[in-house]
Formats: sequence, structure tokens, C-alpha cells
Amino acid sequence: MISEKIKNYAARFEEYLSGLIREENEEYSVVAEACRYSLLIGGKRLRPFLIREFYTLCGGQGDHTKNFEAAIEFIHTYSLIHDDLPCMDNDDMRRGKPSCHIKFGEANALLAGDALLTEAFGVASKTEGVPPENVIKAISVLSEFAGINGMIGGQTTDLLFEEKAADEAILSLICRLKTGALIKAACVIGCLLAGAEPEQISAAEEYAEAVGIAFQMVDDILDETGSAEKLGKPVHSDKENDKSTFVSLLGIEECKRRVVALTEEAKASLTVFGDKAKDLSDLADHLCIRDY
Amino acid sequence: MISEKIKNYAARFEEYLSGLIREENEEYSVVAEACRYSLLIGGKRLRPFLIREFYTLCGGQGDHTKNFEAAIEFIHTYSLIHDDLPCMDNDDMRRGKPSCHIKFGEANALLAGDALLTEAFGVASKTEGVPPENVIKAISVLSEFAGINGMIGGQTTDLLFEEKAADEAILSLICRLKTGALIKAACVIGCLLAGAEPEQISAAEEYAEAVGIAFQMVDDILDETGSAEKLGKPVHSDKENDKSTFVSLLGIEECKRRVVALTEEAKASLTVFGDKAKDLSDLADHLCIRDY
Repeated sequence: MISEKIKNYAARFEEYLSGLIREENEEYSVVAEACRYSLLIGGKRLRPFLIREFYTLCGGQGDHTKNFEAAIEFIHTYSLIHDDLPCMDNDDMRRGKPSCHIKFGEANALLAGDALLTEAFGVASKTEGVPPENVIKAISVLSEFAGINGMIGGQTTDLLFEEKAADEAILSLICRLKTGALIKAACVIGCLLAGAEPEQISAAEEYAEAVGIAFQMVDDILDETGSAEKLGKPVHSDKENDKSTFVSLLGIEECKRRVVALTEEAKASLTVFGDKAKDLSDLADHLCIRDY
Repeated sequence: MISEKIKNYAARFEEYLSGLIREENEEYSVVAEACRYSLLIGGKRLRPFLIREFYTLCGGQGDHTKNFEAAIEFIHTYSLIHDDLPCMDNDDMRRGKPSCHIKFGEANALLAGDALLTEAFGVASKTEGVPPENVIKAISVLSEFAGINGMIGGQTTDLLFEEKAADEAILSLICRLKTGALIKAACVIGCLLAGAEPEQISAAEEYAEAVGIAFQMVDDILDETGSAEKLGKPVHSDKENDKSTFVSLLGIEECKRRVVALTEEAKASLTVFGDKAKDLSDLADHLCIRDY
């Protein structure tokens, strides 16, 4: 079962993660603690898992992706810490626990986010067993998809349309950048580290794009139909905030139809890899055909 | 004259800098604008200048350091944007102009800082004409000196001692990390990109350490004795904030004595480079023996 496989992976990965942030002087240990707290607060570890899967799928050998797996999770975590800050979404809770700035104060949360973003590129640069040209390409992709024309551009656009109506083009832009870009980065980085062929990289990009949008649509559907208890987070938050979503724009039935189509698209893009892509195919189903 | 040389360098460098942040979609242009505003608001461009000088000094040829010059200025600029935020130093003005969050709002300033930090590693990774192993080493150093055990550790410690007395050991730690680390990163990166010998890198480190502390001591002296008009920023700010400084701890005369000694130390560390280090020797004088 793919869900078991991800869970086992996440447990091993977290053990590794917990040792990566080390302060040399106890004077500033508060910011290191804040980093470790947010890194280990939970999460599916989807992005690092995708790096590893695409690396193996493209013929990569050994455990040489682990530094990039950590790097992408550092970046995902920093983005959540900064998103929760009062000047952004002002969220007091994250995964059922106090958010970083509630626990450590705003200044330390800001600095912990900055630290994770900075250390992400440091840990990535210490990758071994991969040709240095490939490491540099992967660092470049990580910056590009997390930067202005990636995740940060998406976050900026999302904030601008927090209180005004967005059309489908804007919503797609936000989705493609804010959540999609880092998922795509993960898939592409896995390929690059393995020295993949251009058509394998294209396939990974198509897979990531389809999964990224479907995943967001499912989230929008669950926010409308799910129960808080089952999801572990408040529901109807979009409606209460008057925020445009795929559901408010397209309706639930159309969203469900598209999720099915996008999942098929994601799986179809994997044909270039043959039978070896079974796990990633199952993952698309697992992520997109959730219980609603 | 070294001061003329830096000014000329800064003018050329700024022209290059201004073209580096480009948004692909106008929806999120506000954050790109905020980045450009803060990048071009001024500054001595000391850190990028140091990269270039040490590169040349260690035998580096051509214009291959320009991406790292931009990267270190991106990181310096992000740190100023985040430092000025209300939850940190809460400064409305920076170099005589409205700080980033006053001009673009808090959320956009936070994101602009995040963007500059992210893009720093992207632009660095696009370095050409240098062996990839050296690029990776330089990326690693950039992250290390800007990260938890570098600039961010210094900023964290500085915040902790904002309202309680610091002794000389703490003040030295803050100075070494908060301002010293990025100066040291610049000197070391210049060496690494040129493929320098270990004793050249050690010399660069010694130079950076001595200059970094002397520079901070001069700043503390000027805050005590200078005029706001001449400095272009408020004076006596440390005293009003009851903040420990080298001057409050050691007295002005002792600070002046140490600045002279540190400047000599910095210059002495350059002997390994012979006559070619004249500019860097003049720079130490220029930075440390300022008008007080």
C-alpha cells in the first residue's frame, strides 16, 4: 500500500531531519529550537518522498538524495512559519499545535523561517555521490521554483486576492505557483540528481502539474464538504473568508470531474517510465481520490 | 584612491543588480518592485567588492564572480528588510528613505526578504567560468555564514540582549556573527571561486575578522561622538536604548586604541599576498580609521 510506504518513509526521514539543525553556541539556541519544533510538528513529507521516487525511477542509485529531501522540507516548513505570521494569514495553530510564533514569539519565528530557508541551500550543497553539475542544476531549480516566479509569486498573488474575487485564471496561477511549484521542484530535482533524460524530466513536470492542481481541488472540496474532526483542521474557512476557490467558481460536481481527469492525466504521463512507476501512479490516486 | 574605486565599482554593480529581479507575471509585481526598491536604495556595496578583490588577489581571471557579488548583496539586503520589520527593530527609515514595509506593507516586505534570500542562491548557482566544485563550496559557505551559526545566530543573540546588559564576550559574539559573518563570507567566497590555496583562505579570514570588529567599534564610537548630519542617521541611539556597546563597555579611548591595532592586524594578514594587496590594505584604513 502506498499510504503505508509513505508513512514508513516519513518516520525514517524525520529521524534524519531532527539531527540537521545544530547550534554551535547556546546563546542563540532559541532559533534552532524553533526550527526543530516546526520541522518535526508533522506533515506528510510528500515533497521529499517525490524527490526520492523520481530519483530511483530515473535510475539513480543509493541514498544520495537525502540532503535535497531535507532541503525541500526546510523550504516547505519555512513557508508555513512565515505564512502563519500575524502580517500574513495570522494563524495561531498549525497541525493541531501552536504555530511557531505563538510558541517562540514573532521575531524568533521570522528568524527561524529565514534560518530554514538559508540552511536549505547549505544542506543541499553538501550532497555527495552525484556529479557536481547536477547538484548545481538542482540548486538552481530549487531556488527558481521557491522564488519570485514560483512559490513566493503565488503567495503574493494569493494575498492580493484574499479579499477580492479571483477568476479561474488567477486561481490557477495561485495554485500552480503557491503549492504546485514546490511539488514540481521535488519531481524535477529527483530527475536531475539521477541525470535523467529530457523526456523523463518533461514527464515528471506533467505529472507534478496535474497532481498539483488536483490536490488543491480536493482540498477545496474537503473544505466545503468535510468534517473538522476528520480533517484535523477547521472547515468552511474559505466560505467564511469570502475567498474564491475552485469549488465556488466551478461547483463541486465539475471539480470532482476534473480531479478524476487530472489524476488520469498524471498517471498517463508516467507511461514513459513503464511498470516501474507503479508507486507514483498509486500516489496520484492516493492524493487525489481522497474520501469525499 | 580606494574610496573612488569603491564608488566607481558600486555604480557599475548597481546597474547590473537592477536587471536581476524580473517577474514573469504582473500579478505579483509588487514583491519584485519591493525587492528592486530595497536593492537599489543605496549602500557601500562593500561585501560584493570584497568578493571581487579577493578573487583577483588569488589569481582569479575575468568577470566570473558577478553572480556571487549579486547573491551576497541580495542576502545583505534581505537581512535589512527583515531587521526593519515591526516585530524586529521596527525602523521606519533606511538610508534616509522609507523602509520596505513602510512603502510596500508588512506582508510584501516579508515576502520580498524571502524572495531575495531565495534568489540569492539561484543567481549564485548560475555562475559560469568557475569549476562546479568551487561554485558548490562557495554556495555552502554563503549558507553557513548567513545561517544559524552565522548572521541569523548573531541577530537572534542581539535581540535577546536588546534590553539586558551584555558583557564583552556576548558583544564580540554578536559582532562576529551579525555583521562579521557576511563580511567573512565575502572574503572567503572570493578566494574559493579563484581556487585559492588554504593559506590564502586563512589570510582572508583573518583580514575579515579584524576588519569586522574594528568596523563595528568605529560605528559604536561614531554613534557616541558623531553628528546626525554627518552620518546621515540618528546618533546616540545606543545610549537612548540602554544598549551595551563596545564604547559603553570599554570606553572611547580603549576602543580607538583597539581599532588602530585591529586595522594593523588586518593589514598584516595580507602579507601573504605581497604588493598586490595594496587596495585591500587601503580599504582596511578607509573603513576603520574614519573621521572621529
